[in-house]
Amino acid sequence: MEYEVVDAQVSPTGRLEVLSRSEAAKLSHKGHGSLHELYRNCSLAVLNCGNELDDGKELLERYKSFDIRILQRERGIKLDITAAPASAFVDGKMIKGIQEHLVTVLRDIVYVNNEIGGNPKFDFGSSEGLTDAVFHILRNAGILQPMNQPNLVVCWGGHSISREEYDYTKVVGHQLGLRGLDICTGCGPGAMKGPMKGAALAHAKQRITNGRYLGFTEPGIIAAEAPNPIVSELVIFPDVEKRLEAFVRTSHGIVVFPGGAGTAEEILYILGILLHPDNAELPFPLVFTGPKSAAEYFVQIDRFIGETLGAEAQKRYKIIVDDPAEVARVMQVGIEEVRAFRKEKRDAYYFNWLLRIEHEFQKPFRPTHERMRTLKLHKNQPTHLLAANLRRAFSGVVAGNVKNEGIREIEKHGSFEIYGEPAIMGPMDALLASFVAQGRMKLPGKKYNPCYRVLAGNPPD
Amino acid sequence: MEYEVVDAQVSPTGRLEVLSRSEAAKLSHKGHGSLHELYRNCSLAVLNCGNELDDGKELLERYKSFDIRILQRERGIKLDITAAPASAFVDGKMIKGIQEHLVTVLRDIVYVNNEIGGNPKFDFGSSEGLTDAVFHILRNAGILQPMNQPNLVVCWGGHSISREEYDYTKVVGHQLGLRGLDICTGCGPGAMKGPMKGAALAHAKQRITNGRYLGFTEPGIIAAEAPNPIVSELVIFPDVEKRLEAFVRTSHGIVVFPGGAGTAEEILYILGILLHPDNAELPFPLVFTGPKSAAEYFVQIDRFIGETLGAEAQKRYKIIVDDPAEVARVMQVGIEEVRAFRKEKRDAYYFNWLLRIEHEFQKPFRPTHERMRTLKLHKNQPTHLLAANLRRAFSGVVAGNVKNEGIREIEKHGSFEIYGEPAIMGPMDALLASFVAQGRMKLPGKKYNPCYRVLAGNPPD
Amino acid sequence: MEYEVVDAQVSPTGRLEVLSRSEAAKLSHKGHGSLHELYRNCSLAVLNCGNELDDGKELLERYKSFDIRILQRERGIKLDITAAPASAFVDGKMIKGIQEHLVTVLRDIVYVNNEIGGNPKFDFGSSEGLTDAVFHILRNAGILQPMNQPNLVVCWGGHSISREEYDYTKVVGHQLGLRGLDICTGCGPGAMKGPMKGAALAHAKQRITNGRYLGFTEPGIIAAEAPNPIVSELVIFPDVEKRLEAFVRTSHGIVVFPGGAGTAEEILYILGILLHPDNAELPFPLVFTGPKSAAEYFVQIDRFIGETLGAEAQKRYKIIVDDPAEVARVMQVGIEEVRAFRKEKRDAYYFNWLLRIEHEFQKPFRPTHERMRTLKLHKNQPTHLLAANLRRAFSGVVAGNVKNEGIREIEKHGSFEIYGEPAIMGPMDALLASFVAQGRMKLPGKKYNPCYRVLAGNPPD
Amino acid sequence: MEYEVVDAQVSPTGRLEVLSRSEAAKLSHKGHGSLHELYRNCSLAVLNCGNELDDGKELLERYKSFDIRILQRERGIKLDITAAPASAFVDGKMIKGIQEHLVTVLRDIVYVNNEIGGNPKFDFGSSEGLTDAVFHILRNAGILQPMNQPNLVVCWGGHSISREEYDYTKVVGHQLGLRGLDICTGCGPGAMKGPMKGAALAHAKQRITNGRYLGFTEPGIIAAEAPNPIVSELVIFPDVEKRLEAFVRTSHGIVVFPGGAGTAEEILYILGILLHPDNAELPFPLVFTGPKSAAEYFVQIDRFIGETLGAEAQKRYKIIVDDPAEVARVMQVGIEEVRAFRKEKRDAYYFNWLLRIEHEFQKPFRPTHERMRTLKLHKNQPTHLLAANLRRAFSGVVAGNVKNEGIREIEKHGSFEIYGEPAIMGPMDALLASFVAQGRMKLPGKKYNPCYRVLAGNPPD
Repeated sequence: MEYEVVDAQVSPTGRLEVLSRSEAAKLSHKGHGSLHELYRNCSLAVLNCGNELDDGKELLERYKSFDIRILQRERGIKLDITAAPASAFVDGKMIKGIQEHLVTVLRDIVYVNNEIGGNPKFDFGSSEGLTDAVFHILRNAGILQPMNQPNLVVCWGGHSISREEYDYTKVVGHQLGLRGLDICTGCGPGAMKGPMKGAALAHAKQRITNGRYLGFTEPGIIAAEAPNPIVSELVIFPDVEKRLEAFVRTSHGIVVFPGGAGTAEEILYILGILLHPDNAELPFPLVFTGPKSAAEYFVQIDRFIGETLGAEAQKRYKIIVDDPAEVARVMQVGIEEVRAFRKEKRDAYYFNWLLRIEHEFQKPFRPTHERMRTLKLHKNQPTHLLAANLRRAFSGVVAGNVKNEGIREIEKHGSFEIYGEPAIMGPMDALLASFVAQGRMKLPGKKYNPCYRVLAGNPPD
Repeated sequence: MEYEVVDAQVSPTGRLEVLSRSEAAKLSHKGHGSLHELYRNCSLAVLNCGNELDDGKELLERYKSFDIRILQRERGIKLDITAAPASAFVDGKMIKGIQEHLVTVLRDIVYVNNEIGGNPKFDFGSSEGLTDAVFHILRNAGILQPMNQPNLVVCWGGHSISREEYDYTKVVGHQLGLRGLDICTGCGPGAMKGPMKGAALAHAKQRITNGRYLGFTEPGIIAAEAPNPIVSELVIFPDVEKRLEAFVRTSHGIVVFPGGAGTAEEILYILGILLHPDNAELPFPLVFTGPKSAAEYFVQIDRFIGETLGAEAQKRYKIIVDDPAEVARVMQVGIEEVRAFRKEKRDAYYFNWLLRIEHEFQKPFRPTHERMRTLKLHKNQPTHLLAANLRRAFSGVVAGNVKNEGIREIEKHGSFEIYGEPAIMGPMDALLASFVAQGRMKLPGKKYNPCYRVLAGNPPD
Repeated sequence: MEYEVVDAQVSPTGRLEVLSRSEAAKLSHKGHGSLHELYRNCSLAVLNCGNELDDGKELLERYKSFDIRILQRERGIKLDITAAPASAFVDGKMIKGIQEHLVTVLRDIVYVNNEIGGNPKFDFGSSEGLTDAVFHILRNAGILQPMNQPNLVVCWGGHSISREEYDYTKVVGHQLGLRGLDICTGCGPGAMKGPMKGAALAHAKQRITNGRYLGFTEPGIIAAEAPNPIVSELVIFPDVEKRLEAFVRTSHGIVVFPGGAGTAEEILYILGILLHPDNAELPFPLVFTGPKSAAEYFVQIDRFIGETLGAEAQKRYKIIVDDPAEVARVMQVGIEEVRAFRKEKRDAYYFNWLLRIEHEFQKPFRPTHERMRTLKLHKNQPTHLLAANLRRAFSGVVAGNVKNEGIREIEKHGSFEIYGEPAIMGPMDALLASFVAQGRMKLPGKKYNPCYRVLAGNPPD
Repeated sequence: MEYEVVDAQVSPTGRLEVLSRSEAAKLSHKGHGSLHELYRNCSLAVLNCGNELDDGKELLERYKSFDIRILQRERGIKLDITAAPASAFVDGKMIKGIQEHLVTVLRDIVYVNNEIGGNPKFDFGSSEGLTDAVFHILRNAGILQPMNQPNLVVCWGGHSISREEYDYTKVVGHQLGLRGLDICTGCGPGAMKGPMKGAALAHAKQRITNGRYLGFTEPGIIAAEAPNPIVSELVIFPDVEKRLEAFVRTSHGIVVFPGGAGTAEEILYILGILLHPDNAELPFPLVFTGPKSAAEYFVQIDRFIGETLGAEAQKRYKIIVDDPAEVARVMQVGIEEVRAFRKEKRDAYYFNWLLRIEHEFQKPFRPTHERMRTLKLHKNQPTHLLAANLRRAFSGVVAGNVKNEGIREIEKHGSFEIYGEPAIMGPMDALLASFVAQGRMKLPGKKYNPCYRVLAGNPPD
């Protein structure tokens, strides 16, 4: 099959970037594993927005001849683009929001590579050092705006959801937006797009002209979950863990919609953190919500959490079925508590310094067959560490489902094998099976072949 | 049935208004037919936005104790509101867009009453004088922005349309918005809301922060077609005819979606004008469009036009079925011709001075039983005058369907009787019957009782 | 002598104006006493800015072939200018601030002529009607900004002052600007320019980007006191009396620098108003100030006031010599009292409705020899009426000094003869003589020939 | 003598800064040579603005108890200030422009220290590496604005100049500003303040609301030449050489007014660079100008250049006496050539990459007695290297005159001894003597004791 492509030269608009000669030079050296390859692939993902495709490997194969080059011009850089997906253009002109995202990709890749990576000032061996890196990436992206009142709601949920669930996420976004709340998601379609659309219209009604629609992504996932052009501020973190940390440190509350393995990963991440004893007193509004038809879904999730992390974990969230205005009100009240708490503790509104995140949640986890086999999935450890390991298990499933590298690994070596204590593996298998049955693993249209096998017991040596 | 109401004092935001002492005094004298009554009723309509209701009479009866008073304060006026529809508020706070509309109502009612009405400088007996009044109202409302390139598309169509048709209007609005075009409609739900929503999201994607969503209304219709809060600039004209003239003089092209009697009225209005010999060379892109399911609808409309106004009229529009991007492209090309034409003729981009509008189309028509009986509906007159009279016939039907005054007339005196030449009355009856059958006359939920009878021949004396 | 002139076509920038066809037509009919003549002469005055010239008659004679025409173009009007003073241009391009002023002239002349003059809604026979006209002109000019805190200081003083006095007005303006206060003057050089310059730099230091530099003028004086391009908002009132009323109704305090007959006129105007019993409780900060060298000047002024209006009048102002920071602090404190008073009384911050201005101060006074002869200058009347008549006497002297019409009257009929009670005429003669001696009547460079004779007693029949 | 001081807590306005925990911690460690000391001293300099004082040592001694601390608050940082010079405040409130400068100091000190200093990515041993550092500092400060047309004029000249010369710099600034040109200076009084004032008023007249008044300084000179609050963008470079490079790489032309040793240093710097063979074709408008009374001054400068650098150097500048409009026109024409050249060469408008600057001009030179003794001041070297060494000689004199460290060195070890070839030392001695005679070395009020002795021949071993 042929895909329509377009060549174009675009001048960055919106956030204008200026590159030094050496930065530009670095980006133009091609080759496997080069900075240019990273930049090219992320740019392609951004340009593919609007096409329903959640397969990072397929994307790269569809647009093999795509390329992007940086030209230095007298009024700043130009991007010279070859064979880009036609969906990024309207009558041959690139959509402005996508142009902005292309520059954002450039900004973050240059910054992370030049100022963070290999800079002795960041101690990546320590929790503080990793948090500092997240802080610097956010600051460089202009995300940290000190004068804003707390109003940022992260929306998590699946990229593959039903029409009814999707409409519900829009209405929730609308109710949040009517109350002046901003939205942050992981980019992509489904539950990550709906709330932004709803909030954007609500902000128009409330004459809020500086509404924010933040998209946090990372090079592995961006191909499967391209940012919608509505995203007003895009940030590309170097890995899953920094992206997750950014979600919880910048936001003032989280709404979780129905989803699949990725959503489970996110739920385990935030619960693992909130279960840490140091965070016991910290207010953090967390709501699971969906339309009436999703009621059963949340029963399953809630049961899984109860069976693995226990009742303490269940206390940290609230399930609200089919009541968007109530979701928005609960968020608003919760955020007010967050504000009061931070004011009292003199913690920044724009960055949750006080939240304790264990090093285990921050260390980058690149799922390989070996690492997936040997995850510690048993109850003989503090609950928040069990959460950390469960999070990794789901993270691996996400990679095997939609990420280029993960898909290639599975193609080469077969399914991941995940071993663990029966009392955990049972519920986990059931949960994953229900995701498959409900079509939450992949976008509709293809048959889903699980990339994992859940096994009770210890891995054979 | 009880309707939830809210009391509030709001400070105008957005466009701030300053009133002189005598203006404020005039607005506070109550009584039937007073300026205060007009202001109160229009304000109520604006506040009722979000409630599905297309019955001007019922609205007034639902909120009998509603009132609005103007308070003079040190930093400008405040609006003191009693018993307003609760839908205008979010958790007790009025939606900002609605606050703006309230001030707009005030602005236009004061201006039309004080500066236009009774001012000897406006010669309402002449076509020029009526056009001048329209110009002044638009200028006072800040609508005429000389530096803008032509980009304003009027969208006409029904307030009561199917979900599929509604979604289609959103997609057309999105395609228009992606191409940088702005939207003007008559306010209200259905085909008047969809294009604005679509365009607003498209503008966000294109980072167009000054997108315009103009709403043109008049005191009779506003109660049935309340402006959506997305409307960024609202204008209330004193009567139907000035509102229609404003549509065609400020816009650079028109898209017509499926609709009922009001849409037919608008089609007859624009065709009647374009058929005038003086306008023969004047470019004016006019597209009728709808989803696949609406194809038959446009066959009917096209046939009706052919049978009444003839083939010449059919040449002035293009019917496009189920192709939103094509609609947008045709508009864009047509507007480019408008631009070139005006540039060559030195006519303003922001006001179509060169368009010739016959006095017959400008004179206010208040439908009474007598006037409806005696409309000249025969072919023994120039086509554009027949169009003017047909326009009046449909205008009367609209009034009988949804306007407070019209409904009361019908309740008192029974249906309007419309007489005319059989070759016209036949097609007209058929068209109206199809509107009824398709549920286009009124919002779903109530049985529709026609407010008219179409009769061939001359009215009995 | 030849004066350098430039031809140009300029597009209005800043406040863009849109004219109706009939408005444009009216402005293009030439002839003595026509609207076009008024527009042409005021435009010439605005363009002459930067040339030191305070003689309205000479200006018209210097640039006899100057003309300005309005062209209607597709993006609004263009101004076609012939033989304009070269000082309005930099390397052939008109200074933007002057372009704005040209459009302002157009706006006010059109508005006053079309909407105010001859409109039966304004009762020019009553005090309320005249105030209403002032209000409408100000509102149309965008001067009345309800959300602003009171911060507007009017600065009065001479156009012909010494370098030392001029520098002092700059420093006072700087001190006012550092405290966030805005400036309003009568346009022109000297004490009307200095405070704006000082405030503009102070606002830059305080990062106040919306600082306001209001200039209020009228067709008679504008030729002699052209607005400096720093003036950010210019208003042209139809006559002296409306201009004076605008000063006192929009401002929150007044600073008076040394000056000549015009300054005396202004002092008498404000004192006459403040002396009205109804205004006894109304706070109104009024400071007379100048550098050390001007100390004697204010002794004279104070003595004249004491001898004519009495001790009560002397209580309404404060004289501060050589202390700019103190002037600014006194203004700030006084304006705070104004704010509290208006808040308590619910009077607008942006328009001093509560100030009582007698009809005598509002009626336009066109000085003729006959009227000047018969002014009632005796103590046998309430003090505030004496002030009104004294004001007229000085107003006549200003006209004879610098206004086109006044100069022509004097040339034709000789000096004005001003009769009155010796106890008044003595001090008046002394004061005028001191203005002459100090060079305050006219800009330096020409010998001043008094246009008046002060005579004790009654005019001979 | 006691100096009035004020304590205050200020929230940064304008450019808001967000600090990481570790950055804030680093700034709070006190001690000699600490980052806190550097921050404190630069902050003090900024706060001392408005006091005429050009002695870095005396400043520190006057305000010994001054301190500044950073507080982390929920809405960003606050600055806690003790015993600051009262001149930074108006009625106890700090001037906003100064608040902004305080935050700027913070920004640059944190950035240079954390991201530049000690970062292995910058090769300070190479010319490219040093240029890269300058680029990064400028980019981080937001100075590099790619969409701007070339319009930046650097104004150099003395901080201690006559009233007539100062007024002249204002008029030149005014003429530049009327033509839309922006200003960059080295901060401080005299020729560094005048052009900004003039341009600011001209920009107001031209309705240019984003006029730029850039101030480039470094920690050694800032105490003697505090930035005027008009400076809209302040940058603090780590040393003299980076500051000078920034001047020539960001500007599009340079105007030199009369001045003393610092001005001579700057002239030698730019001429030394322009004399490099690689820069022979590069357009760079360079004008020396002053009022009529300064004509003789430029004769001396021109002669000195002729005698030391030769006729080739004299070709690179133009001397214009007493004609501000001509200066502005020459700049405008020259900048147009710069624009065309960069466009053709694809060099950035915002950073002069093509200009070749020898490593000798970039290496930081800290003047000590030993280094001043052994400067290579003879003609037996390429002219541009002689210029580099002469530049250092004058740089040393500046340090001895006004910088804290330099003054202390002179106090401890006596005058600098500068040896060199008689054909150079003669003109140099004469030039310096004329600076002393004309009062250009230090602000008036104190007797000037030269900090140098010019000696012909080789230094004794």
